Amino acid sequence: MERTYIKDLKKKVGAEVLLKGWVDIRRDHGKLIFIDLRDVSGQVQMVVLPNHTEAHTAAEAIRPEWVVEVTGTVNQRPEKMVKAGVLNGDLELEVTGITVVGTAKELPFEKEADLNFDTYLDHLPLTLRTERSKSIFRIQASIIQAFREYLVAQNFTEIQAPKLIGDDAEGGANSFNIEYFGHTAHLAQSPQFYKQIMVGIFEKVFTTGNVYRAEKHSTTRHLNEYTSLDLEMGFIDSFRDICSTENKLLAHIMKKLSETRSEDFKALGSTIPTVPDSIPTLKLREAQAIIKKEFGEDCSNEPDLEPQHERWICEYAKKTWDSDFIFITHFPLSKRPMYTYEDPADPGYAAGFDLLFRGIEITTGGQRIHDYDNLVTAIKGKGLEPEKFSYYLQAFKFGMPPHGGLGLGLERLTAKLIGLDNVKEATLFPRDLNRIDNLLSK
Amino acid sequence: MERTYIKDLKKKVGAEVLLKGWVDIRRDHGKLIFIDLRDVSGQVQMVVLPNHTEAHTAAEAIRPEWVVEVTGTVNQRPEKMVKAGVLNGDLELEVTGITVVGTAKELPFEKEADLNFDTYLDHLPLTLRTERSKSIFRIQASIIQAFREYLVAQNFTEIQAPKLIGDDAEGGANSFNIEYFGHTAHLAQSPQFYKQIMVGIFEKVFTTGNVYRAEKHSTTRHLNEYTSLDLEMGFIDSFRDICSTENKLLAHIMKKLSETRSEDFKALGSTIPTVPDSIPTLKLREAQAIIKKEFGEDCSNEPDLEPQHERWICEYAKKTWDSDFIFITHFPLSKRPMYTYEDPADPGYAAGFDLLFRGIEITTGGQRIHDYDNLVTAIKGKGLEPEKFSYYLQAFKFGMPPHGGLGLGLERLTAKLIGLDNVKEATLFPRDLNRIDNLLSK
Repeated sequence: MERTYIKDLKKKVGAEVLLKGWVDIRRDHGKLIFIDLRDVSGQVQMVVLPNHTEAHTAAEAIRPEWVVEVTGTVNQRPEKMVKAGVLNGDLELEVTGITVVGTAKELPFEKEADLNFDTYLDHLPLTLRTERSKSIFRIQASIIQAFREYLVAQNFTEIQAPKLIGDDAEGGANSFNIEYFGHTAHLAQSPQFYKQIMVGIFEKVFTTGNVYRAEKHSTTRHLNEYTSLDLEMGFIDSFRDICSTENKLLAHIMKKLSETRSEDFKALGSTIPTVPDSIPTLKLREAQAIIKKEFGEDCSNEPDLEPQHERWICEYAKKTWDSDFIFITHFPLSKRPMYTYEDPADPGYAAGFDLLFRGIEITTGGQRIHDYDNLVTAIKGKGLEPEKFSYYLQAFKFGMPPHGGLGLGLERLTAKLIGLDNVKEATLFPRDLNRIDNLLSK
Repeated sequence: MERTYIKDLKKKVGAEVLLKGWVDIRRDHGKLIFIDLRDVSGQVQMVVLPNHTEAHTAAEAIRPEWVVEVTGTVNQRPEKMVKAGVLNGDLELEVTGITVVGTAKELPFEKEADLNFDTYLDHLPLTLRTERSKSIFRIQASIIQAFREYLVAQNFTEIQAPKLIGDDAEGGANSFNIEYFGHTAHLAQSPQFYKQIMVGIFEKVFTTGNVYRAEKHSTTRHLNEYTSLDLEMGFIDSFRDICSTENKLLAHIMKKLSETRSEDFKALGSTIPTVPDSIPTLKLREAQAIIKKEFGEDCSNEPDLEPQHERWICEYAKKTWDSDFIFITHFPLSKRPMYTYEDPADPGYAAGFDLLFRGIEITTGGQRIHDYDNLVTAIKGKGLEPEKFSYYLQAFKFGMPPHGGLGLGLERLTAKLIGLDNVKEATLFPRDLNRIDNLLSK
């Protein structure tokens, strides 16, 4: 018999079916044994009656998380037993046969128990099995697929950027060191240099992959390994072209999520934001003036926004423009990387932006310097040695168009979309200062 | 004026257009200056006549790889000047204006020069700008996209697997060490453990990303960082289900390449293989018997195939079944990792396979042990400590279905599809024993 997925049972009332899945809950009422069976598509209540002797004996032995193949008949539940609004709440499987294909040891806690976060992380192979986790990571999969889908349709070419890089790493202080055949290599903090080089080949490129930050932070915002969604595009008129691309990209992602993941958002109690046709935008100095006026804190001399400032500005954007998104542009050049393009109309400030979403920065982007001599000057201006960047610099030595791009943090976007308190909840196997799977010994 | 891409010029004969791109070649005939302009979509010959004074002055200054924006009129070439079979071979742009948006220094060699491989690698930001490289990496982008597309359609869920792993790494000897906040971490050799864990959540998963091998090989077959296309699926009947999935997956990839990249294959002089409805399959012992009989070498006691053996078997498969692909199954358990499932019908041998393609192994796959106690026994049997694998082992402690999967090397597949001699030619920025971008100092 061919397997039926649990979500399709409603089409099979009265029929005999074969189900495969995990025992979610088992309730032994002596003669009647009830089992909630779970597969990737959903759950259903099954009942094992004593007259099916073999199945009943099997059902007496099985325990939560055992993996079984079950045959049975799909019955409509009596009206008073119907659970409205629940998948298969009106159905029940009357079991005729059970084959155990995988056993489980006793669980350390109930799978849906309200755990402290360290216990949750200590047991991800079990704790990720909840409907909640499935919804979170199905949404994440749809985001990354929508990102690629939109850019492919816009004639961007996907590239595979290396993560293992040499001494010419961007900002050495926060990079992890690797022993590399008697040399020291590093883990890339972003695909920045490679995506820029590839603008020289394909004009518009994107890449999705892991990036690494050796930051000694253990916060709800930081990860030491995360997934960066990166794009870079040539022949731009200004960094506003990058903002415009991100605006349309986000609209596409939200549209795709509405089409494919609305059940997951509903189950999580979250709503998919509307992306304005034109996301509001403020210069950093304008944002700081608003913070002073509306929230009473003077941060005008700071070169960046603190987390609380980001939350305030998002609150303001929501109230003023009904937008969950806001671009903050024109950070001081001094706080941006050496490849940052200066806005000719606003000297001393970067032709670039952060995108804030629901209280947190999810993107940094902007125009890059494309003239070789200017880039060498900028590298020296940061106190760095151009010789260290000789490989990257070739792209500019050999002709580059005006270009720019952005990086979008997949886990932060996922977390904020859903309303998760901790970005680690939006990361399958989060790495931080204290943990790689298990807690690191002190 | 809106930009016209060079491939679309044929629709604009007689019109004035704006082109953007790189100067590929410039031929100064004094009065007439000819420039081949290149953008992401193709090339066209342009002519600058002396009566357009400003454009002519600009054209006198520009050099190869300068980036320009050009206005001009699209003219049909006189019949005797038509180059048949070449994009825009029947057209020419009569230039009316040139704006330089990026300059270039003098090139170290002509971009299309026949370089030795080290010189090629030393200058990738320039040498990747050839039509040949563009075709190679467009094909690679289509492969990875087709891989994901097929699996999403088959209800696989995409996951993001960590690359930064702890001491419980698979096979420590070949893994790179990372300094991780006072601890030693490793770079993952595959997403094996995580994709297996995720079968417990989503049943069928895939992931695409970088993997790392600290092998001291510098050959045309090896890379120290490469892209692995991985899938893992639960509730299989046997490892033949994995073979069957790969068979259909490859058929989809080749179909997609035929639809989207046939021009690139043509330009490279390569042909897209036909994937048989059922790829031929041999047990290792059968393959060894064929090698002995057909090629005169007795390798019957070896636990694996040497590169020459792989080439012979592929030659045999092509001759006998007209197939570019062949599965080799049932390697001795002793040579396979600890999680390998033993074929109950063939004790001592793995329920798994390699896929050979045009002379080289591009996939290893198979069924995995899903019973906790059996897996602990197998780990001990390899002389390893189960305690080191405690995180991974949780998945099995808490119930797993029969499952298996495979990993497909993106660069090897790309190289063999196109017929490249060296897998590094199918890698944008290859890392090996001697090189991370630049040659490593001795």
